[in-house]
Amino acid sequence: MAAQSKPDLVLASVRRLLRVGATANLLNLLQKRHPVDIAGMLRALNDHERRAAVDAMAGADPRLAMQVIAELDVEQGASLLANRPPADIVRLLQELAPDDAAALIDRFPEELREQVRDLMQGQTTAGVTELLENPEGTAGRIMNPRVFALPEEATAAEAVNALQQLGGVEMSFYLYVIDDRRHLVGVVSLRRLLLVPPQATLKEIMTTDVISVGVDTDQEEVAKKVSSYHLLAVPVVDDENKLVGTVTVDDVIDVIRDTTTEEFQKLGGLEALDEPYAQTPIATLVKKRARWLVVLFLGEMLTATAMGYFEKEIARAVVLALFVPLIISSGGNSGSQAASLIIRALAVGEVTLRDWWRIMRREVISGLSLGAILGSVGFIRVSLWQQLFGTYGAHWFLIALTVLFALIGVVMWGTIAGSMLPFVMKRLGADPATSSAPFVATLVDVTGLVIYFTVAATILRGTLL
Amino acid sequence: MAAQSKPDLVLASVRRLLRVGATANLLNLLQKRHPVDIAGMLRALNDHERRAAVDAMAGADPRLAMQVIAELDVEQGASLLANRPPADIVRLLQELAPDDAAALIDRFPEELREQVRDLMQGQTTAGVTELLENPEGTAGRIMNPRVFALPEEATAAEAVNALQQLGGVEMSFYLYVIDDRRHLVGVVSLRRLLLVPPQATLKEIMTTDVISVGVDTDQEEVAKKVSSYHLLAVPVVDDENKLVGTVTVDDVIDVIRDTTTEEFQKLGGLEALDEPYAQTPIATLVKKRARWLVVLFLGEMLTATAMGYFEKEIARAVVLALFVPLIISSGGNSGSQAASLIIRALAVGEVTLRDWWRIMRREVISGLSLGAILGSVGFIRVSLWQQLFGTYGAHWFLIALTVLFALIGVVMWGTIAGSMLPFVMKRLGADPATSSAPFVATLVDVTGLVIYFTVAATILRGTLL
Repeated sequence: MAAQSKPDLVLASVRRLLRVGATANLLNLLQKRHPVDIAGMLRALNDHERRAAVDAMAGADPRLAMQVIAELDVEQGASLLANRPPADIVRLLQELAPDDAAALIDRFPEELREQVRDLMQGQTTAGVTELLENPEGTAGRIMNPRVFALPEEATAAEAVNALQQLGGVEMSFYLYVIDDRRHLVGVVSLRRLLLVPPQATLKEIMTTDVISVGVDTDQEEVAKKVSSYHLLAVPVVDDENKLVGTVTVDDVIDVIRDTTTEEFQKLGGLEALDEPYAQTPIATLVKKRARWLVVLFLGEMLTATAMGYFEKEIARAVVLALFVPLIISSGGNSGSQAASLIIRALAVGEVTLRDWWRIMRREVISGLSLGAILGSVGFIRVSLWQQLFGTYGAHWFLIALTVLFALIGVVMWGTIAGSMLPFVMKRLGADPATSSAPFVATLVDVTGLVIYFTVAATILRGTLL
Repeated sequence: MAAQSKPDLVLASVRRLLRVGATANLLNLLQKRHPVDIAGMLRALNDHERRAAVDAMAGADPRLAMQVIAELDVEQGASLLANRPPADIVRLLQELAPDDAAALIDRFPEELREQVRDLMQGQTTAGVTELLENPEGTAGRIMNPRVFALPEEATAAEAVNALQQLGGVEMSFYLYVIDDRRHLVGVVSLRRLLLVPPQATLKEIMTTDVISVGVDTDQEEVAKKVSSYHLLAVPVVDDENKLVGTVTVDDVIDVIRDTTTEEFQKLGGLEALDEPYAQTPIATLVKKRARWLVVLFLGEMLTATAMGYFEKEIARAVVLALFVPLIISSGGNSGSQAASLIIRALAVGEVTLRDWWRIMRREVISGLSLGAILGSVGFIRVSLWQQLFGTYGAHWFLIALTVLFALIGVVMWGTIAGSMLPFVMKRLGADPATSSAPFVATLVDVTGLVIYFTVAATILRGTLL
């Protein structure tokens, strides 16, 4: 359990050894730890220390250095490598699985990227440069092109033998079976390989219903498949069903995590960042946020226009203006609740496009109930303040009624708009998460004002108005 | 590839066979499909058809029936079983892994749950009832208590033999090594078992740095450990480091998915639902949403109070009221952007509590920039409308300035509030996701009004006010 205990003490030792330049002792200390834990320590070091620690490992134990770098954010890992000579980078990258190497190369500055690619193309590390040719976000970009595959005629004993030859570079859980033109025809789990008689051929023991993905399949689709079929890895095939790689469950977990981060950011009303928040330069951060904020602001300008139409009413009954934030925000809040529920239900496949009418009915009922609840609270608030402070004058009852009915209308409308917008987005081929809380709120603010002032005009005509 | 093709045609056949009661043909058709695909079809059937299909499978092929039920939402699965006689339920549950069985039993109505538990305690299906004694949300609740474990003295050949005896009930990827008191002392991957000489003892080939979790460990912690160490399964130990079960990566993916759903719902400003949206009764849905909406509404009432303080100013310059929604919503939008960024960064561990000051500095700069951008757009809007329509009269320039400075102040404040609230929540031991977009928006609405009217009073004193 050493790897899990007293991380702070170990970190202090690492710092001390770096300071005195005791590289041998440092390596000795690090080599006893799991790369994941070393990566955790590197994150806690400052830039200078981090680079020194990587240099120490890269010199004496390049495999460890790269295992650690693979555990860091890919941007951070790339920047730790980028100041080395290209030939040295290529040497280090050879310690990694091709998909991890490709991800790092992809983050290098333009010039270095080209240099490294050129150097690699001359070498035996085939696969890495090819991976980079697949479009971003596809299975082809995260797959490992080194696949353990054998022909149908091979026996279980031969397969075990082949596995032993293979050594221990990559985790393999399945043995894929291919025909003489590399078409994927079956799969055998390692587990099953242990259970069958040694002379059985793969053809006899393989499962032929292989669940696979295309090299162009969207990574989110890959993640859905791996998780719903409980796979440890999924084979990747090209247009002709030829086996070209595998995507493993740990890569799938990364995809799920990154997708969730994007959805969160969209739900919060900004463009998805491409890098982790802490690594994103402020200028990028501002740009990604400003674009949506300005769009929302332009939309929200309609509230000034809408209120302009009711300027005379407001001048006659200023009391109406006092409730504007309360009423429109209630619409926005109920809308963002509904939107987040539906966006998520669509994302996990609990609800599909054709359920929209069923959801609409549920949400009309929910919205009506929620509106009635908030409306009652609002009604009580106005009545109470009137009794206590006489705030609202002779027509307090009509004002209270206006608040009640406006809230019912606005909250119901917010709920319907919030729940239906994700469907509309999906139908238009956009990501439902784009119907973010701020987007729904803006929509509902403008329309909510119209609802409020219309209700007010109806109820207060002849008295306050 | 049959399992993946033409799902709609298959579904139509299933419906037809159910209608004419051709059970044998139906079974024949279903047995060729993957349980995941059958579960997908069941979801598309109506209640009556779904129950009939499960009945058909449960009679002739109970293992298939239960594999399919394990793929459904656990609430739906439980309700499909709940109308059967308890003894029959127990018979069917024996086809499942103990953790899946326990999850279903947990969703039965009180009385049935007790009956099933009592029946099971008398039987050999130990493990299931014990699982249910572990607290919800812990590793102990989702672990599989059937672990493949052998003593240190066993040889690789004996281990392979033992594995062959075990048959194929559960996926095993690792062989755990225990001492004579069942303490976890090491782990050997199946892969490694194939590579070592048959006479090697487990003691010689095992890894002793075993990454494990406690039976009481929070499921989210388990998920973090499995994903950061790229494990396929993690052993679960009790207080004395005795091996009591394993949690596999597919369960971890489910935990990640459910956690994400909860975070989404919290971010959207409602309490996390315990069941999938589509299965949640409307009354529950309304209750979960109403509670937060009312809290937010009570908070938002302060806007009416705040505006009440400025009633005289509004009466004198109604134009001020027109910009209220525009200005406060800009604060809310920038706040919800910041909140969603920070909530997610905290959730994935990119940012920790001690980073708050660094984040604060970044967000002050971001907020100032965003405020300046929106303020300029607002300034241009007022100036433009003045030139085009003469909307704002003689003092239009002062009004434009008010909008500009109010937006800078409100957007900066929204950004700071939105980014710092998640830290405050976390520091208080609450889930940062509770600082939802609507919560931030409400907070910023009230304070934003004060900022706006204070700016207005300063700039317009002596002219409009």
